[in-house]
Amino acid sequence: MAETGRGFPTAEYRTRLTRLQTAMHAVGQDALLLTTAADIFYVTGFLTRFWESPARPWFVIVPANGDPVAVIPAIGADLMGQSWISDIRTWDAPFPGDDGVSLLIDTLTGLVPATGSIGLPMGLETQLRMPVGDYIRVCDGLAPRRFADATVVVQRVREVKSEAEITKIRAACAVADTAFAQVPDFAGPGHALDQVFRQFQIALLAGGADWVSYTAGGAGQGGYGDVISPAGPVPLADGDVLMLDTGAVLDGYFCDFDRNFAIGHANDAVSRAHEALFAATDAAMAAMRPGMLASDVHHLLVQSLRGHGQTPGGGRLGHGLGITLTEWPSFTPHDQTELRAGMVLTLEPGVEIAPGKIMVHEENIVLRDKGVELLSTRAPRDLPILR
Amino acid sequence: MAETGRGFPTAEYRTRLTRLQTAMHAVGQDALLLTTAADIFYVTGFLTRFWESPARPWFVIVPANGDPVAVIPAIGADLMGQSWISDIRTWDAPFPGDDGVSLLIDTLTGLVPATGSIGLPMGLETQLRMPVGDYIRVCDGLAPRRFADATVVVQRVREVKSEAEITKIRAACAVADTAFAQVPDFAGPGHALDQVFRQFQIALLAGGADWVSYTAGGAGQGGYGDVISPAGPVPLADGDVLMLDTGAVLDGYFCDFDRNFAIGHANDAVSRAHEALFAATDAAMAAMRPGMLASDVHHLLVQSLRGHGQTPGGGRLGHGLGITLTEWPSFTPHDQTELRAGMVLTLEPGVEIAPGKIMVHEENIVLRDKGVELLSTRAPRDLPILR
Repeated sequence: MAETGRGFPTAEYRTRLTRLQTAMHAVGQDALLLTTAADIFYVTGFLTRFWESPARPWFVIVPANGDPVAVIPAIGADLMGQSWISDIRTWDAPFPGDDGVSLLIDTLTGLVPATGSIGLPMGLETQLRMPVGDYIRVCDGLAPRRFADATVVVQRVREVKSEAEITKIRAACAVADTAFAQVPDFAGPGHALDQVFRQFQIALLAGGADWVSYTAGGAGQGGYGDVISPAGPVPLADGDVLMLDTGAVLDGYFCDFDRNFAIGHANDAVSRAHEALFAATDAAMAAMRPGMLASDVHHLLVQSLRGHGQTPGGGRLGHGLGITLTEWPSFTPHDQTELRAGMVLTLEPGVEIAPGKIMVHEENIVLRDKGVELLSTRAPRDLPILR
Repeated sequence: MAETGRGFPTAEYRTRLTRLQTAMHAVGQDALLLTTAADIFYVTGFLTRFWESPARPWFVIVPANGDPVAVIPAIGADLMGQSWISDIRTWDAPFPGDDGVSLLIDTLTGLVPATGSIGLPMGLETQLRMPVGDYIRVCDGLAPRRFADATVVVQRVREVKSEAEITKIRAACAVADTAFAQVPDFAGPGHALDQVFRQFQIALLAGGADWVSYTAGGAGQGGYGDVISPAGPVPLADGDVLMLDTGAVLDGYFCDFDRNFAIGHANDAVSRAHEALFAATDAAMAAMRPGMLASDVHHLLVQSLRGHGQTPGGGRLGHGLGITLTEWPSFTPHDQTELRAGMVLTLEPGVEIAPGKIMVHEENIVLRDKGVELLSTRAPRDLPILR
């Protein structure tokens, strides 16, 4: 698929496999069991929107040595057969009573010694995408083999992106740049917010997104109430601040950034908030280096915002980005993850302008040895006004 | 929100709560723990695309008596506060080391007696949306309280839709009807499949979809290879069969149906396959009644297809539909779920025209006391030809 600019050459997957197996060896895990769309895409290149159906579990096993094995519903055999994976075992899912459980047990039994350890991501920001009752059955069926937490194994590998991955994320950001540039064409006083959301998604698709997995935003007088709400039919009004945020997907990779707009005019508090958000982002971009901790970035952002007389927003002020809309680490006071070159991240400072009125600003970056490289086109320094 | 045609009146949620609590009482469960977007939306009306971020778990507890309790990340407090739920407890997620675990344990401890049973969906077509390591911690922290499978509790309630829900799904189907009617405007010989997919999503949004959670399809000479692939840039050619499938979302409810088109012309095998698929759907729609089993519908479809000299496709030939793209039951030989009036379902017969060449046909219906009511506009009897 690489000829068309889609997918990756097999060498990319072989490098990922080697990195995972090296990490597995370091913690003594004899196999790695992956169940999520993101982890399976990372190892195999298997890309489909069919994950939207919760009906069936999917499994990929990375053995300590040798190539990955896919244990998947028969409906995926054709598409997985187009990937670099050759060992593909299927069952006729969904199958009441044994929905892949015995096939998974048989496969793991053949790959892992009886006293072995099977890594499974179990920690923060992970999910097990299979029925928990079946997981318990698999645990019983594999004993005395046991599952061990593989969160670190997967996260330390996936969080450092290859140049090929960075190229994909940059392309997804460019799609969103194009769509954000068109916002003045479909948003302004009197336009209903839900129609603005629709037009924004249309602009993302027309700009080349394969699909739009995430749009959110807000609008309100002098600031919005939250950043995760769907849109209602309320028309935008003079004095509103409009925020649009998107995770558009191109070839399986996300962008995730937002843009703010003042409707009609921006009052002084809004202008000051925007200035502070812009400056905090600049400050973080100037200071970030490999070896810092995620919590250091939170501190940089908060200190800059406070220095501008603002009340920093709660929650995280940025995060990892790539195969999912959000990845670890999180820019919070608590996250001690070390930043490394090749991490793709969002900087997402937020402020509370007044009770129930917030403003959030977001850019996408990649951390390099010597500092930050922007992947999104920097937001304008002055808050754009839509009339 | 009901004034604007969005959401449901509180009475709808109270009815759902009563039905769930009645089902819980029947199996002796003292609370129900819900973790997925669909289950939480069903009970609370909390609708956001923020589930796309895997960073944080979300919990809603339905006690045996009284109103639900939300235990959620602080970022969701504003939006959950707009729902009918009044007991909302938050933590500052993501929080390494205790990402809602102690708050969830405290809340469940206060709601469930020490010898009590907490229902959790664990069975076929369910997922536990929280880190499995945290689930184990919650199990330990709640002992001697124990978790028990609540798959049946949730599925028997959610699978029978209210008239208000059916109205939402019908509206989502109407959006897709509108978009499918426009396919001849942007698909035909020479059009690249990936551009057709983009234009189809744009048509769904322009037609009123809030967002498009699922599009898939296929195209190939005399049939396509699978039904879950993303699109490549290959141009459609004379003799191709094009299929487009969508799960467009309106106010949180899905449609899920597809349409087939012949590019330039349809060969005899394709025409016969389409005729058989149309007839099998008719046969099922004429015969389906409450009290039949899901496996009976599979049998009806397979018998009709065989009667037309076709090789029925493997896998399931239809399924439930509503808050997610696919819901239980599954029209397979194995699914013994009883059909009940109010179930919204897809009929999705498929045939293998030749090795590696399939064709799938899909409609959305609601089962009534006296039979089937269509929610999608019936596909044309003759396969449309795009020139």
